[in-house]
Amino acid sequence: MKIACLAGDGIGPEIMAEARKVLDALALDGVIVEDADVGGAGYHKHGHPLPPATLELAKSADAVLFGAVGDPSCDNLERHLRPEQAILGLRQALTLFANLRPATMFPGLEDLSALRPEVAREIDLLIVRELNGDVYFGEKAIRRLDDGRRQGFDLMSYAEDEVRRIAHVAFRAAQGRGGRLCSVDKANVLETSQLWRDVVVEVSAEYPDVELSHMYVDNAAMQLVRNPGQFDVVVTGNLFGDILSDQASMCVGSIGLLASASLGETQTAYGTKGLYEPIHGSAPDIAGQGKANPLAMILSLAMMLRHSFSLEAEAARIEAAVAKTLADGIKGADLGGSAGTAEIGDAVLARL
Amino acid sequence: MKIACLAGDGIGPEIMAEARKVLDALALDGVIVEDADVGGAGYHKHGHPLPPATLELAKSADAVLFGAVGDPSCDNLERHLRPEQAILGLRQALTLFANLRPATMFPGLEDLSALRPEVAREIDLLIVRELNGDVYFGEKAIRRLDDGRRQGFDLMSYAEDEVRRIAHVAFRAAQGRGGRLCSVDKANVLETSQLWRDVVVEVSAEYPDVELSHMYVDNAAMQLVRNPGQFDVVVTGNLFGDILSDQASMCVGSIGLLASASLGETQTAYGTKGLYEPIHGSAPDIAGQGKANPLAMILSLAMMLRHSFSLEAEAARIEAAVAKTLADGIKGADLGGSAGTAEIGDAVLARL
Ligand SMILES: CC(C)[C@H](C(=O)O)[C@@H](O)C(=O)O
Ligand SMILES: CC(C)[C@H](C(=O)O)[C@@H](O)C(=O)O
Repeated sequence: MKIACLAGDGIGPEIMAEARKVLDALALDGVIVEDADVGGAGYHKHGHPLPPATLELAKSADAVLFGAVGDPSCDNLERHLRPEQAILGLRQALTLFANLRPATMFPGLEDLSALRPEVAREIDLLIVRELNGDVYFGEKAIRRLDDGRRQGFDLMSYAEDEVRRIAHVAFRAAQGRGGRLCSVDKANVLETSQLWRDVVVEVSAEYPDVELSHMYVDNAAMQLVRNPGQFDVVVTGNLFGDILSDQASMCVGSIGLLASASLGETQTAYGTKGLYEPIHGSAPDIAGQGKANPLAMILSLAMMLRHSFSLEAEAARIEAAVAKTLADGIKGADLGGSAGTAEIGDAVLARL
Repeated sequence: MKIACLAGDGIGPEIMAEARKVLDALALDGVIVEDADVGGAGYHKHGHPLPPATLELAKSADAVLFGAVGDPSCDNLERHLRPEQAILGLRQALTLFANLRPATMFPGLEDLSALRPEVAREIDLLIVRELNGDVYFGEKAIRRLDDGRRQGFDLMSYAEDEVRRIAHVAFRAAQGRGGRLCSVDKANVLETSQLWRDVVVEVSAEYPDVELSHMYVDNAAMQLVRNPGQFDVVVTGNLFGDILSDQASMCVGSIGLLASASLGETQTAYGTKGLYEPIHGSAPDIAGQGKANPLAMILSLAMMLRHSFSLEAEAARIEAAVAKTLADGIKGADLGGSAGTAEIGDAVLARL
């Protein structure tokens, strides 16, 4: 069971250290962990945010545990050298097309959300975001038009097989949860969305036990404020998924709590190959101060054990230890508490 | 002062009737109001959501007062015949590139927002949404690829002059408000956004008195939940503006309260030519029942008087009457009250 461990920039190394403590404590047989540089750290040491050796390691591993990338000192580099290109490059190179972003209210944290407690309490949804297509990876450039004006352009597109494979992931996820799937698009304006909707409807014939609905993205952004409890599984494209999943995670109170899994179709001897990362970023403003909340990183480790190593019991054990830590009032600054990174990690360890 | 009055579908005619009562009560000299069919109503009577006579009227008028379009009986029509095409067509034909969407908490309504009252109370922002470009109006189709697969595509783009003119509108709006402008884009992924950001920075040189910041759209969706009070003026493209302005309006509690103005560069003898519409849609589920909240429509009338007819005093009078109506506890079902459409309209009239 080979794990590529890419801590990255900012608070990445600090929170990764806590996840590693948890992984070590499980004393799993046959686990090999290999570290590599990525993001700004990759650029500064090797001249590229996704150095060849890092990409090779990720390709050969059964799972990738990913911290965070983003480094203000790289802000003025050309686009292909910026830290974010590392995560975009990994998603593409490993064909990780399905991004699972669960957002669930932790009992006892209702008071931290900007939403009213009675609204926030009901949040229990999973956003399934497509991750390999859309306007992210289409042809794009800044060009000069014939009359000399500068124009920026990006091609948005989805082909039917790209929609079909993410739809299957979403329908299966709905079967394993509340049986309801809401597909979010902008079919009243976009042809990409019209095809998306057509294909989702086609795939739905294979899942008569799942209740399918459709929602325009502007309405979805409203409904996530008004009544997020109405959603079970939401499936959407790469761009809308980027926006809505960050919005949903903030509804939970802190993005320092939310993990994500990015999966493809590659099956290893142990499970589905995937990349696991917290939803939050590298938070350069608090990096190196021992203040960052490591829980999203630790919960990403749990998702890895579940999806890539079929270790459901161990995953659930970690999740229970995290919930207990929070219920015991051990909270970082992001949740209004004063516990530091290592202190939170130790508290989870003690409750494992 | 010629006003094109396009009531449209669903609750459109009901709420428009209340706005007309308010307009009549002002007894303005020299106002001509002409009605025309639009949306599903246009399609059913004339075979097109934006019939030629309606478009001609809108072109010859000094301002367009617009109700709502959207009619479930048109759901299966080809895209160019669907009701939404009427509003998209008007925005384009009249070059209405600047959509102003103010979102402000009405005193006394803090308890209606899904946000905590102390968070909701601080909302006082203006979203300036570009309305003539972006992925809305680029080349788009569903096509067959060489291998036979269906693909949907839409070209996203902005040319520098398109960004420049909306940036000027936004900087001037910030000068007239709190002096802060936040430009929202996805420049870490999109070249369209990179050009957007470059041009906004260029234009900022002309507005040293305005404090400019930039935010990625996923972060903006989070910040609008976490702390919407941090924003003064937000400027963004057509697609991101569609999503964020609906999200922001829901933070205020009900979209039945929010008006919008769509402006271009055409100056008439009286002011800037524009189209004014509530943010909410045609609400077919409650149409014809006298239940719809007409306040957003009445506030759209106020915006029309301000921007297209330079009647600031009359606009402020209407806005004060609306605020008084709400403060007096006269609320429609959308706000948890029981007042009907005409009753609310009459209450505003009585307070004019
Ligand atoms: C860093 C950025 C390119 C990335 C994205 O837009 O996908 C991030 O926002 C995310 O959601 O993982
Ligand atoms: C009806 C639709 C085409 C329109 C848009 O997306 O612009 C609407 O959502 C709006 O915001 O006015």
